[in-house]
Amino acid sequence: MDQNLFFNRTSRSTRYTPGVTEWRLNLELAKGEQGDERTLVTRIARTISADIARGRLRPGARLPGTRSLAQALGVGRGTVVTAYDELAAEGWVRGEPARGTFVAELPVVARPRRFAPAAGQRASVPTRAGFELGPLPPGLADVPGDDELLDELDLPYNLSGGLPDTALAPASALARAYRRAITRRGAALLDYGDGRGHPRLRAALAAMLATSRGLATDADDVLITRGSQMALWLIALALSRSGDARVAVERLGYRPAWQAMRACGATLQPVAVDDEGLDVDALAASIEQDLSSRSSSSTGAPPRAIYVTPHHQYPTTVTLSAPRRLRLLELARRRRVAIIEDDYDNEFHYEGRPVLPLASADRSGVVVYVGTLSKVVAPGLRIGYVVAPRPLLERLARLRRVIDRQGDLATEAAVAELIEEGELQRHVWRMRRAYHARRDALAAALTRELGGTLEFTVPRGGMSMWARVDPRVDVERWAARAREREVLVRPGRMYMFQPATCPHLRLGFARLPEPALLEGVRRLAAARPRRARG
Amino acid sequence: MDQNLFFNRTSRSTRYTPGVTEWRLNLELAKGEQGDERTLVTRIARTISADIARGRLRPGARLPGTRSLAQALGVGRGTVVTAYDELAAEGWVRGEPARGTFVAELPVVARPRRFAPAAGQRASVPTRAGFELGPLPPGLADVPGDDELLDELDLPYNLSGGLPDTALAPASALARAYRRAITRRGAALLDYGDGRGHPRLRAALAAMLATSRGLATDADDVLITRGSQMALWLIALALSRSGDARVAVERLGYRPAWQAMRACGATLQPVAVDDEGLDVDALAASIEQDLSSRSSSSTGAPPRAIYVTPHHQYPTTVTLSAPRRLRLLELARRRRVAIIEDDYDNEFHYEGRPVLPLASADRSGVVVYVGTLSKVVAPGLRIGYVVAPRPLLERLARLRRVIDRQGDLATEAAVAELIEEGELQRHVWRMRRAYHARRDALAAALTRELGGTLEFTVPRGGMSMWARVDPRVDVERWAARAREREVLVRPGRMYMFQPATCPHLRLGFARLPEPALLEGVRRLAAARPRRARG
Repeated sequence: MDQNLFFNRTSRSTRYTPGVTEWRLNLELAKGEQGDERTLVTRIARTISADIARGRLRPGARLPGTRSLAQALGVGRGTVVTAYDELAAEGWVRGEPARGTFVAELPVVARPRRFAPAAGQRASVPTRAGFELGPLPPGLADVPGDDELLDELDLPYNLSGGLPDTALAPASALARAYRRAITRRGAALLDYGDGRGHPRLRAALAAMLATSRGLATDADDVLITRGSQMALWLIALALSRSGDARVAVERLGYRPAWQAMRACGATLQPVAVDDEGLDVDALAASIEQDLSSRSSSSTGAPPRAIYVTPHHQYPTTVTLSAPRRLRLLELARRRRVAIIEDDYDNEFHYEGRPVLPLASADRSGVVVYVGTLSKVVAPGLRIGYVVAPRPLLERLARLRRVIDRQGDLATEAAVAELIEEGELQRHVWRMRRAYHARRDALAAALTRELGGTLEFTVPRGGMSMWARVDPRVDVERWAARAREREVLVRPGRMYMFQPATCPHLRLGFARLPEPALLEGVRRLAAARPRRARG
Repeated sequence: MDQNLFFNRTSRSTRYTPGVTEWRLNLELAKGEQGDERTLVTRIARTISADIARGRLRPGARLPGTRSLAQALGVGRGTVVTAYDELAAEGWVRGEPARGTFVAELPVVARPRRFAPAAGQRASVPTRAGFELGPLPPGLADVPGDDELLDELDLPYNLSGGLPDTALAPASALARAYRRAITRRGAALLDYGDGRGHPRLRAALAAMLATSRGLATDADDVLITRGSQMALWLIALALSRSGDARVAVERLGYRPAWQAMRACGATLQPVAVDDEGLDVDALAASIEQDLSSRSSSSTGAPPRAIYVTPHHQYPTTVTLSAPRRLRLLELARRRRVAIIEDDYDNEFHYEGRPVLPLASADRSGVVVYVGTLSKVVAPGLRIGYVVAPRPLLERLARLRRVIDRQGDLATEAAVAELIEEGELQRHVWRMRRAYHARRDALAAALTRELGGTLEFTVPRGGMSMWARVDPRVDVERWAARAREREVLVRPGRMYMFQPATCPHLRLGFARLPEPALLEGVRRLAAARPRRARG
């Protein structure tokens, strides 16, 4: 620091700065900081604006010349010029040609005014609504509150299934890609843009689907959504016009999908699930019945869609058998029913070859394919996608426009980069190895600690196990007692279309490292209620 | 590089690596890179995995010891250990205790299989849907396609109004805040989380609203949404159950809001707007008529809600007068009608004091307040918010869960940091000064070039002007001719509930720097059609 840094009184400044005679820029730069131009500018500008805000620098005071300040700080003059420009743009200082840079009169911050003295002002947001709310829309009654979900998420032994381990997520790679995207193309990525998703991400996903899932797609066949949940919401909305729509669903299945469909006005019809997956014959029989009763009943039409999880059935983890797949495609084609194929964790298959999705064999345009990066990368990314025949895809894109207009283009561009660079594929390999080991660890621990109570097939893929519980044990009571020991497991009833007692537990193995899985199982064993006399 | 870097044959490796006798790590590190541990790890790991992938390193080959590689590269040994660990986690290499690190057998990538030979495989996504699509849901017919919107956005003289200048957005500050958030709390921010929005952002916005908008709120009164569009969607959905809902809207107004409400099943009822904003007396009269016709008509109830833009009326920019505000609040209270107050560009007020929102004086719980960071920071952030009485807010949160579950917690945390650090406030000051200057530049240019054709009041706030056009000029034709000259202006008919000829143009001044504004006006003047004989 040298004398140039001291504030010099100017003829004008005396008027404004009684009592202030000198000012020193209170900033020391470490050696390493010299490199990052942008950080320097910010630190210089912020130090000065803070001094103005707290009155150390008063209106009218002249700042040091850019040359002398640059010299004193050991930075380039351009850095100081940029900092002064920024301060001027914000209104802290004003430049006067040939005289220097002066602290500006602080902007009179226009305090907002009440629109009328009579209006008064409220003390807080009223707790009651002054208008009619009416009954809760259908499908929302069983949506858990956020606080409940957050409490569960925080449990140290969360074996609730389907949750990935975000501690393994490629967070730094994502942050770097995000920064690169914003730095290079910030103005465009922060602007209004393509509601179908960033073209680069659509192209990258299309290529990935073509390579790994036998889906011959290009970018225009893909719509990016906010997680698979928004995909399901859009599809339900597009197919459930005028309240007459019925959607067939798996009797054991994914409740958030049902909630979305109901909230969109669809009526749901459960179809049986067994150890080959969805019972396609039962679906076919019910459709034939719909058609034959056409004259007598009020509906008389097949369901508009069947929502199905063929790869790892949710929650039972079984893969829909090949004969059923063929029959389902044929049935859908003949009866013009849409198949909503939810392929939520395709990447995690540990033994044998994964099976291509129904969509890969759909030549009649009946499959609406839904995927997500929530499991493979992280739920917080909120990136899902739909591949569907163009007329539906265009309708979904319009709906998306009115719901939230567009996704996060910056995040989408960053994820596209991770795919293009192979980072996503490497991450999948890492996850697959980690989850495979965790699956085996959970299976071994369950056999050791609870072999007499639980019966299960080790799933070939997915992120959780579906275990049959000794029918003499009260499953719900067990789950409640486990929860007291900070273990979260899901009793089968949670997945039933019409909740009833169901002697199953769903146990997720992906979220926790092996030691936590083992401790969770020990606690689960300790929480087991006594068997009723059988 | 020293000899240690050369690949050493091992007794085992000969079996696996015919023809490969030595290997050199093909990596040179610049001096400056030594600092960033993470980048180093990545570069080392990626160089090695690339060599494995392309066969330069074969299964069974032993990698150099961590110590010697670290020495040769001039990095810490820990860096190399981390890189090797990462390669092991990905399955590229395996460590053998006391023997070293070896290139692993490449994972047999399980190629997915067709589920049945009979299934065949499609050549591309079928272009036709094999199921019934039915008519377009209401409200969607006039949603423009993405390609059209993108074409417009790209026009060099885009004066279409309401678009902020994202070139001025705090992109680097945002990228830094995002990286900090992800680095510190990545696992939590990438996980499932709070659907109401990140608690830090809700608290920061609540504090901001309390300070600058007279809204006594705390974090629990705020729901974060994806832009104001999702806020409007959620509100419309919550209030439009069972298809019987009517919403009153400004006759000149914001079409995307109308589209959302219609798609949710609401019927819209236009109310007049004049130079004091919404005509509250007309609204009151129509409500009294609804009530008096209760016995005879099929509706017989007031609208459930009135959607209004009181601060800078969209598109006319006028501020709703104080007497009307009081009457509107009283009318809503008495008739139990919700007021959806869309305060989309509150921050941009250039002259006089801004007026506090209706919500600040709402003591009966009738106002549902909607705001956004799209204009003040950037549309691409997709951050909007709702402040409303708790019972409605809880319902909106549940609906949000079934639509897309949650927002981008990482982006939300990053924006919270920008608010907490005052960066957002400084950005607002910068924008306000820039837009103020642009407003004046546009007004001067319009007066100079088109003074005989356009008549306007310079708006006290907002991002655009509403100019009356000489009635002898065909406004739509003018807009079309301007577009041929790469100028985008919006004719008044676009904002009319029932589109008809309307002698107005909306001209935005926020998006473009002054030179572009001036050139845009020159081109607009050149595009003006001849006046019809009047």
